[in-house]
Amino acid sequence: MTTNKMAVLAKRPFGDIKDDDFDIIEAPLEALKDGEFRVEVAYISLDPAMRGWMNDIKSYVPPVGIGEVMRALATGTVSESKHPKFAVGDTVSGLFGAQTHAISNGESVAKIDTNLAPMPTWMGGFGMPGMTAYFGLLEVGLPKEGETVVVSAASGAVGQVVGQIAKIKGCRAVGIAGGPEKCAYLVEELGFDAAVDYKADGFYKKLRAACPDGIDVNFENVGGEIFDTILAQMNPFGRVALCGLISGYNATELPPGPKNFPAILTKRLNIRGFIVFDYAKKYGQAIKEMAGWHAQGKLKFKEDIRDGGIEVFPQTLRELYSGGNFGKLILKV
Amino acid sequence: MTTNKMAVLAKRPFGDIKDDDFDIIEAPLEALKDGEFRVEVAYISLDPAMRGWMNDIKSYVPPVGIGEVMRALATGTVSESKHPKFAVGDTVSGLFGAQTHAISNGESVAKIDTNLAPMPTWMGGFGMPGMTAYFGLLEVGLPKEGETVVVSAASGAVGQVVGQIAKIKGCRAVGIAGGPEKCAYLVEELGFDAAVDYKADGFYKKLRAACPDGIDVNFENVGGEIFDTILAQMNPFGRVALCGLISGYNATELPPGPKNFPAILTKRLNIRGFIVFDYAKKYGQAIKEMAGWHAQGKLKFKEDIRDGGIEVFPQTLRELYSGGNFGKLILKV
Repeated sequence: MTTNKMAVLAKRPFGDIKDDDFDIIEAPLEALKDGEFRVEVAYISLDPAMRGWMNDIKSYVPPVGIGEVMRALATGTVSESKHPKFAVGDTVSGLFGAQTHAISNGESVAKIDTNLAPMPTWMGGFGMPGMTAYFGLLEVGLPKEGETVVVSAASGAVGQVVGQIAKIKGCRAVGIAGGPEKCAYLVEELGFDAAVDYKADGFYKKLRAACPDGIDVNFENVGGEIFDTILAQMNPFGRVALCGLISGYNATELPPGPKNFPAILTKRLNIRGFIVFDYAKKYGQAIKEMAGWHAQGKLKFKEDIRDGGIEVFPQTLRELYSGGNFGKLILKV
Repeated sequence: MTTNKMAVLAKRPFGDIKDDDFDIIEAPLEALKDGEFRVEVAYISLDPAMRGWMNDIKSYVPPVGIGEVMRALATGTVSESKHPKFAVGDTVSGLFGAQTHAISNGESVAKIDTNLAPMPTWMGGFGMPGMTAYFGLLEVGLPKEGETVVVSAASGAVGQVVGQIAKIKGCRAVGIAGGPEKCAYLVEELGFDAAVDYKADGFYKKLRAACPDGIDVNFENVGGEIFDTILAQMNPFGRVALCGLISGYNATELPPGPKNFPAILTKRLNIRGFIVFDYAKKYGQAIKEMAGWHAQGKLKFKEDIRDGGIEVFPQTLRELYSGGNFGKLILKV
């Protein structure tokens, strides 16, 4: 194979992502310079934050430029190298983008041990989503034994790990997910104490029933009405680890803020936003601890791996925002 | 004088407080029981939280009941006592209510030293508002030397103290207030680095100009559009001490939450609500430190003392929510 197939950003989406927001193009492989290596990409990670990267808005990372390969986390194998620290055959993860072949100088690239876990797990439980769950829950949510932890988008890549770590820490873990299948999975397979289907009638009352002692920690991935319902049920001095607001990512105008915002004051809540990259120096330590839990069977990872390669990148990404995935969404190249 | 004049809650206000939400009534003084004492009330404190106490909503304190004397902080002199620890002539502060004569069992009553400061100051700088400013800024806002602190309702009872403590701690203090007179006072008399008039055109740009290095700490008293503008200008890892949301207190339906709520995530902000009563055990230490600053001329208190007695309690309270006061609002009995 001598060409690189890429999904490049053709235009900035307005609202939902459309197929023609990307161009799928092919180009000959470029020659490596000294200090570079080539990665044959095996799996591309689909992450909620990607929608934000497509907007022309100043944020914690610059937006993807029009005509540029879409930024994406990915895993693959080094196929050619002029870099002293990366050799042909090394398995690696990094921001390789939505393409079949990436050139890297090694920045923010990690070697991954596929004996410890297969490549997809390095984009899920042992990757960004797992790190997000670990640091967001333990360093922002600060759960104490016996407290109730509620996580939204609970069957997603991050949420499933949050609930399982909450259980490991002796908390009551309650997940919010869409549909009976996902809810059953959380309780039966992952050991959550309860799961509440936000698409079913009576969400407020069902959440109340699932949290008879109120909510002490909310790991929030969704925002919107789900978050407003949680706010209404938080206990005094509760903590919110604000990880994502996916319900608003495709909005064409800024959605309204939480109506129950005054509860932050009357209940003395602590709401803290965080970005996983801020904890990059401690990833190694987190993976070590999580690998231990994984080996003991206390921590399982559900991945939703799709076929079809780069051509189906746009529609696969879109599914993330409609809840079409069940577990960590990954595209096989 | 043998009667007690009281402002009792006649009905729950809908929106703005109206005169007939209160009845002004008189009744003969009741006899004291053992363990009680009578306070001749000299000054009644008007505080933003009072609007919330008038609603039939479960909160950090129970609502005032219909027909009950309106809850209010006040100061006065013990005029009769069957309590071992309070003697006739003692000057005291406590939740004596909007009335001329209160009976107390001593619970949550503090003796005040009118040699250190006159009675009104014990309802302002050395009272709840001062405590609110002290603990909210220092224990929730956590300002570091050189950082920019923005406080809304800056000429109010709490805000004026917040800005002055921020200066004492080596921060840039920026106040938001309504009208040129209040803004000039903050800078010229209280030593704020800048003050921005939210009622004038170009508020966003003027706040930006007043905070050339962005905002690190926001002590928030107001909410609404003022808070949304601040959120947009917060620096990464900034802190919000959420003290009040006065812009919404008279709303007849829940106002929308902050539109810029997603900034909490992208900027990793920490928003924490607090209630001054949670710090009650440390008031003494705070007053001691603040009295030192006051004696050194580093901390001034502006009070807005109104005449007219209990009869004008309803209209005086109402002024608080329209920005009609200039400094700590107090009604002389």
